[in-house]
Amino acid sequence: MYTPGVADAVERAAADDSAVPRVTGAGNRIFVVTDGSAILGLGDVGPRAGLPVMEGKSVLFKRLADIDAWPLPLRSRDVDDLVRTIADVSVGVGGINLEDIAAPPCFDLVRRLEDELEIPVFHDDQHGTAIVVLAALRNALQVVGRELSDVSVVVSGAGAAGSAVARLLLEQGVRRIVVCDSRGSLHPGRDLAGEKAWLAEHANPEGDTGGLAACLDGADVLIGVSAPGIVDESMVRSMSDGPILFGLANPDPEFDVEDARRYGAVVATGRSDLPNQINNVLAFPGVLRGLLDAPVRRVDGVVMAAAAEAIASLVEEPDPTQIVPDVFDDRLVERVAAAVAAGAHGLSDATRETGR
Amino acid sequence: MYTPGVADAVERAAADDSAVPRVTGAGNRIFVVTDGSAILGLGDVGPRAGLPVMEGKSVLFKRLADIDAWPLPLRSRDVDDLVRTIADVSVGVGGINLEDIAAPPCFDLVRRLEDELEIPVFHDDQHGTAIVVLAALRNALQVVGRELSDVSVVVSGAGAAGSAVARLLLEQGVRRIVVCDSRGSLHPGRDLAGEKAWLAEHANPEGDTGGLAACLDGADVLIGVSAPGIVDESMVRSMSDGPILFGLANPDPEFDVEDARRYGAVVATGRSDLPNQINNVLAFPGVLRGLLDAPVRRVDGVVMAAAAEAIASLVEEPDPTQIVPDVFDDRLVERVAAAVAAGAHGLSDATRETGR
Repeated sequence: MYTPGVADAVERAAADDSAVPRVTGAGNRIFVVTDGSAILGLGDVGPRAGLPVMEGKSVLFKRLADIDAWPLPLRSRDVDDLVRTIADVSVGVGGINLEDIAAPPCFDLVRRLEDELEIPVFHDDQHGTAIVVLAALRNALQVVGRELSDVSVVVSGAGAAGSAVARLLLEQGVRRIVVCDSRGSLHPGRDLAGEKAWLAEHANPEGDTGGLAACLDGADVLIGVSAPGIVDESMVRSMSDGPILFGLANPDPEFDVEDARRYGAVVATGRSDLPNQINNVLAFPGVLRGLLDAPVRRVDGVVMAAAAEAIASLVEEPDPTQIVPDVFDDRLVERVAAAVAAGAHGLSDATRETGR
Repeated sequence: MYTPGVADAVERAAADDSAVPRVTGAGNRIFVVTDGSAILGLGDVGPRAGLPVMEGKSVLFKRLADIDAWPLPLRSRDVDDLVRTIADVSVGVGGINLEDIAAPPCFDLVRRLEDELEIPVFHDDQHGTAIVVLAALRNALQVVGRELSDVSVVVSGAGAAGSAVARLLLEQGVRRIVVCDSRGSLHPGRDLAGEKAWLAEHANPEGDTGGLAACLDGADVLIGVSAPGIVDESMVRSMSDGPILFGLANPDPEFDVEDARRYGAVVATGRSDLPNQINNVLAFPGVLRGLLDAPVRRVDGVVMAAAAEAIASLVEEPDPTQIVPDVFDDRLVERVAAAVAAGAHGLSDATRETGR
């Protein structure tokens, strides 16, 4: 029924691979990939039980950014197998969105896919969280009249989100930053590997070796991407005068919200029933739209900072109860997409993909 | 935005895998998979250039049978790699439709996937073609007043389609059948492997060792799934009186249509501008609909024969110019789907999948 017309498209694609995004839907299509190892706060429920999350995410991509997103739960767990499968299927899409894949394997997975694929790889738990945290922090600092370069930051949580947040803040000029996992600060004296070892070496310039409480003493900013309730009132009180407090743990923040309001100058959480909801949906639809449109081959610090700046700029006059735009702000996707494309086009041709 | 509602679905799926088709779209979703090795008549153009065909096919699945079908071109060529990738992605769908994958690797691929997967694998070039040919042949035999068991059949072409047609006709009671490739009849005296070796042993009961012309001499039925124009007028004339002539090569049949009409009792081709268009679209939407609905785990001879019977039955009084229903017949999908499900339910529980 569809022949012979379809043969024309095949012949054009066969003659010139760069025609594929024009004669097919590949340029507007992504896979939402998970191995089911870290689904929501529910943990390792497996790829089939993770499917509702991937389907929900795919609907958001379509509704908010008109991207054809398809859930792709994978049975594999081994990073080698995941890389092989994702590379195998990547020829039919314009981007890969990784979702709810456990740390630390996710770090190696993203790096290897970036080496292997000719299309962008976005890991929402890493890149998405880092972008929205940077956006919120920019506006929070404006509220308190401080700069990224002169505040001391404690990141609670050294998983996918915490690591990506710390890396991006370091790139953006934060000098004093300590990352804590459940055993306390990451420092060179600990026996660490992979991403944590990198953070122990590159963050924590004063060599803090204490626990989360010791690190928070006198700090200006808390970024919690860890577990509900692990920051008690005394820890909040010990911070510098009028700290910035982000508690993004699900379903409840790291701190008691009343405590945080008593001591904090700016308080933000992941909850939709409180002011300053920091939610990845602020970033991922627009970022992927921009990655596909430009097209951009790699999600790097320049792209992430551009997206964060676009999100932050939608709040014209930040105040303690509004440091991020509303998730339903209808300017979001277009602004973020344009910023991502412009950011990428500012890069040298060598780091930019122009072909697909 | 979609939390926490989605967590309920995850928890139900994690507690009971059989809930997945109800709480997700997996039960109505298939991948349309190719490695790009045998795209239309264009050959080995690769998976990206094959994408327009997979997209067109996916649209037909959705429009005709309301199945969510997604193109999945794969970079792999090795059967081991294809099996691994398809098994890896199979956890998120209810069926696999293989498309335009070259013979002979396609035979091994289908068998290994049938062993490995818990969902049905339909290779349109094999299963789809065999079903529509059987449907058309049933009605053509009715026109000429003959039976499957008493006609002599020559299949021209020993690729995916020819092999599958011959296997199904043998299962359905055809006794005299010879399959020819470009070197002539498949017989035990030739040095053959795989599917061709099987056909040389199980078909060709009289041990014909000649070329296509010799095999056609006196034959009752020609089923051409090979190349345009390879059956000349003398070969058509040499067949038995009033033969059945199917020429399904693309874009033109194996024989000259005027020659065929002069000598043949029933003539059918793949062309939409001639009567008796034998097109796989008669089968694949309804077959997949039935496989998903039942659900059926395996596409075997019983399922294929049931589908063929349903297609054939839509022509109430077959005559030389109408042995198959119109491809736009709006009863097709429902009838074929019901027949596939009923056929499968007639099987023993041991060979039927009930869980997903």
